[in-house]
Amino acid sequence: MPRIPADVDTPDVLIDRDVLERNIARMAAAVRERGLRLRPHAKTHKVPEIAALQLAAGAVGLTVATLGEAEVFAAHGAGDLFIAYPLWVGPRQAERLRRLSATARIAVGTDSAEAAAAMGERLGDAAGDVAVLVEIDSGHHRSGVHPDAAADVARAADRAGLRVEGVFTFPGHSYAPGMPVEAAAQEQQALARASAVLEAAGFTVLRRSGGSTPSALLTDAATATEVRPGVYALGDAQQWELGRCAPEDIALTVAATVVSRHEGGNDVPRRVVLDAGSKVLGSDRPTWATGYGRLRDHPDARITALSEHHATVVWPEDASLPALGERLRVVPNHVCLTMNLVDDVAVVRGGTLLERWTVAARGKNS
Amino acid sequence: MPRIPADVDTPDVLIDRDVLERNIARMAAAVRERGLRLRPHAKTHKVPEIAALQLAAGAVGLTVATLGEAEVFAAHGAGDLFIAYPLWVGPRQAERLRRLSATARIAVGTDSAEAAAAMGERLGDAAGDVAVLVEIDSGHHRSGVHPDAAADVARAADRAGLRVEGVFTFPGHSYAPGMPVEAAAQEQQALARASAVLEAAGFTVLRRSGGSTPSALLTDAATATEVRPGVYALGDAQQWELGRCAPEDIALTVAATVVSRHEGGNDVPRRVVLDAGSKVLGSDRPTWATGYGRLRDHPDARITALSEHHATVVWPEDASLPALGERLRVVPNHVCLTMNLVDDVAVVRGGTLLERWTVAARGKNS
Repeated sequence: MPRIPADVDTPDVLIDRDVLERNIARMAAAVRERGLRLRPHAKTHKVPEIAALQLAAGAVGLTVATLGEAEVFAAHGAGDLFIAYPLWVGPRQAERLRRLSATARIAVGTDSAEAAAAMGERLGDAAGDVAVLVEIDSGHHRSGVHPDAAADVARAADRAGLRVEGVFTFPGHSYAPGMPVEAAAQEQQALARASAVLEAAGFTVLRRSGGSTPSALLTDAATATEVRPGVYALGDAQQWELGRCAPEDIALTVAATVVSRHEGGNDVPRRVVLDAGSKVLGSDRPTWATGYGRLRDHPDARITALSEHHATVVWPEDASLPALGERLRVVPNHVCLTMNLVDDVAVVRGGTLLERWTVAARGKNS
Repeated sequence: MPRIPADVDTPDVLIDRDVLERNIARMAAAVRERGLRLRPHAKTHKVPEIAALQLAAGAVGLTVATLGEAEVFAAHGAGDLFIAYPLWVGPRQAERLRRLSATARIAVGTDSAEAAAAMGERLGDAAGDVAVLVEIDSGHHRSGVHPDAAADVARAADRAGLRVEGVFTFPGHSYAPGMPVEAAAQEQQALARASAVLEAAGFTVLRRSGGSTPSALLTDAATATEVRPGVYALGDAQQWELGRCAPEDIALTVAATVVSRHEGGNDVPRRVVLDAGSKVLGSDRPTWATGYGRLRDHPDARITALSEHHATVVWPEDASLPALGERLRVVPNHVCLTMNLVDDVAVVRGGTLLERWTVAARGKNS
């Protein structure tokens, strides 16, 4: 069965609707079974139609990374948004937060007394309309404070008039082979410790938020109240190579055409070149990845180089090279980057184009 | 002097108009002096206003990577476009090429007899309106044929009714330390050899096109007729670290805010986190680069990790960390990716916002 609709030109992003819905239902059920709430990270897809499917499947709200993403999803009816990011709030950001909190329940991350104080001061009378979650570093060493420092940040937020609702962390170090179990354990310890510190300081901890896609189903209802996986809805080559999803669970592929074909020899590699490069796939490549993405239907082929409009694919020696003009499906390494590169996507079922969805929050970096 | 206008929110892309104009004038003069024609690659910036400055400075036309880019620049008045890419032309691409060639002089790359035959057949009566340049592999081993195989491709194009105008190559391996001189030499040998092969087969070689930003000024008028550098107009951290531009030649920076600040200790790194991540900087990182971009005004700081909305910056031990809320200028590793991530850019002079330019060809991958 042809998997790329004839009316699609390459490169183009395809989302298989059946796989997407299955992924959404599966995670919703698994999180519910564990007694956790699901707040999917919408930065992965940036598409209101996908958010609506997640909310219909029982998600309690959405996670976003920026004010701009929050504005897009609020405008499309999302009523409960967590900006899981240590925002620095100036006067213009405060005005946007004020407007947002008039239409949706808004929580924001913070990881310093200074940022919390600045946010509270600039929000003024509206500070009480915005909840904050203190960001905890659970071992990824990006943003977030040590669990023991959570009370200092919470007290500053409280003094600034913000509502302190709890703590959150992102176990980014779970995105590596063999790491999910250890990262999930560190995440739970960090959330538990930070919660205990806040409770001891007199705060009621309503929310303990964790969970990347690799670690979400290793998260425990004893220490977390909600999880924020994002990639699970679409899947990508990183999750495939980490063994966190099977190839048939990958809903997003990039349709590409063979534009150049070389049998090689004399120190020149045997290869084909596809018209999907870093400007549609994104160029994230962790050191442990086998290449710059994978071919969905040719798991032994390797994308050895990526430039803006070329993917160089080395083919297994025992298989014949695909023909010029042949169309193949590429699985990007990191799906969140792919969605942020295109203005719209082709929604497909089998090999049929159903409709196109606009990536409404694309490029909303601020 | 503050370098980031107060009316800009972060992250945002700033283009310093004076530096841009100086870069454009300098390359135009240097290429003219060498007796070459300049056909800048517009995929770098995707902005009609920048293309207009390049053409006003004497560029003979523009290079683009896709039909979609060609359509945008043709709609903005560009009259001579080279799609330096081995396009696979189906019926819809043929229709677009036909429309393009009604308003502009169009040349397209090809690197196989099959692709040339398909293009000619689908263009039908319009085949003679489209020029082709045979793509040569000069050592980058991406697309392109061995110089000795150029005549086979040219003959197929000629049989298909296309106008064979010459040869082109992209010395992509010039983007590495110590490589520009060797890559430029290989480029010239490849162009000279392929031209000789075509002339021997009875073709008149009107165009021999080469030249990346690192190799453009090493290209010789004896073997090339035109060069296609792109990055030179804006500059980036790759060119800075390769020594192909000085920090003061970098026209594009990404304004970012310190959102998280950690003195570190106990195996936790001393660092700040900026709100510019891979969704605005792009995540290209060659193995020889010192990090995921550079700070324009703090050359000793190192961007050690990049996620979608966070740049983790390790600061020199002997300098105090910048304050929370402080705004810094980041130089992306690869400027072509940054321009493709934003819908518009802030044009600045010193610390003043002059206007915003739309990145009209953003996302035009097909």
